Amino acid sequence: MTFTAQILTLYPEMFPGPLGVSLAGRALSEGKWACDPIHIRDFASDRHRTVDDTPAGGGAGMVLRADILGQAVDHALARRPDLPVLAMTPRGTPITQARVRDLAAGPGATILCGRFEGFDERIFDARPIEQISMGDIILSGGEMAALLLLDACVRLLPGVMGAASSGVEESFETGLLEYPHYTRPVEWEGRAIPEVLRSGDHAKIAAWRKQRAEEDTRLRRPDLWERHIGVRDQPPSGAQRTTKD
Amino acid sequence: MTFTAQILTLYPEMFPGPLGVSLAGRALSEGKWACDPIHIRDFASDRHRTVDDTPAGGGAGMVLRADILGQAVDHALARRPDLPVLAMTPRGTPITQARVRDLAAGPGATILCGRFEGFDERIFDARPIEQISMGDIILSGGEMAALLLLDACVRLLPGVMGAASSGVEESFETGLLEYPHYTRPVEWEGRAIPEVLRSGDHAKIAAWRKQRAEEDTRLRRPDLWERHIGVRDQPPSGAQRTTKD
Repeated sequence: MTFTAQILTLYPEMFPGPLGVSLAGRALSEGKWACDPIHIRDFASDRHRTVDDTPAGGGAGMVLRADILGQAVDHALARRPDLPVLAMTPRGTPITQARVRDLAAGPGATILCGRFEGFDERIFDARPIEQISMGDIILSGGEMAALLLLDACVRLLPGVMGAASSGVEESFETGLLEYPHYTRPVEWEGRAIPEVLRSGDHAKIAAWRKQRAEEDTRLRRPDLWERHIGVRDQPPSGAQRTTKD
Repeated sequence: MTFTAQILTLYPEMFPGPLGVSLAGRALSEGKWACDPIHIRDFASDRHRTVDDTPAGGGAGMVLRADILGQAVDHALARRPDLPVLAMTPRGTPITQARVRDLAAGPGATILCGRFEGFDERIFDARPIEQISMGDIILSGGEMAALLLLDACVRLLPGVMGAASSGVEESFETGLLEYPHYTRPVEWEGRAIPEVLRSGDHAKIAAWRKQRAEEDTRLRRPDLWERHIGVRDQPPSGAQRTTKD
């Protein structure tokens, strides 16, 4: 079955957008995934096609109405009851590569994108919607976050990435940052590729990469490192937590 | 001075893309920011316009060459020496709303987007580049992350957001998630807007919103909550850490 992205949005013209070029674009034109934007405004009932209103209790901005959102979500669920419904919101659970991998292994997703101040909260009580955050920053809407999420999913679909082995040694797949990469020229501006990488000794290379992945994670991302050593139950020697200056 | 995004990319056609519509698009056409993609391939020196090579030490994928990247970054720096150079990479520092706000207050940014397995690490030793991560997921390239970052910056530029007061009470600006929103209809599917929001009592409304912001942050994002109470030095009453089931 083809991975399908149903996107509920006020800006359907944003899709596929940048997902229409490069890797994801080729996969789209080859039918390896499908991109179906649905215009939230189609579910407005008045002649002005109103979808939002002022926040109850006062404040700046506009809030997307629960009744309109409910109809849009119901339409998406009727079309594809098999797809999980996600909403992009900074109030959601931070996305993880594990969740991306789960989604990519499934039939797709219905993605609800907010604009303005966000959604009327009652939509989350009334419909089964997973709230997802793409990082602790504020966007003008959920569309860009949806594009990011879909990019992460699409590259994992069967036949999309050229090299089948890609995707298993990368950052976060092991709970660590990925080790640093080097390529030709061997010397550039007086800087040489680390000698071990030119040794041809595969065991040594693997050990160096593992050590660099651990070291960089520990220095750059103490939060990931703590989770990593937590998972392993005990710290390896020399793995005291340090922080970067 | 106009906020300028110089984007070093192998897919210049991805820009402005979704930033060309809605809020950011209107601001772009009004000259409130400028979007200058620069093609990394223009800095290749051979007739095949090669920009990448196989990873030293073996492995899947291709790595962007340090010499090509160096020339591209030097070109960008020569054009706009005043712009900080950022690289989008999962090995970078996680983006924060504080960093977004800093960037938006400055002259813009040169953003280096990777593809394939990433960058030859020597570029980061040889040039002043801030490595930024847009979350712990793997993308097909840095372009989508750059679009996300720019969306977050552009909405903060003077005159871009309609309501001047927006952006100060939102998620993360206070170190907390934002409180939930409600709007008309007052009752929907048997669910009413919380009564306090209809009371007209501004002090009560503000207290309710603060309490909900704190409660939701504590339940949904214990990591943010701990940082928040750490900043305040001591926990408020009833602020024991709990986790969501």
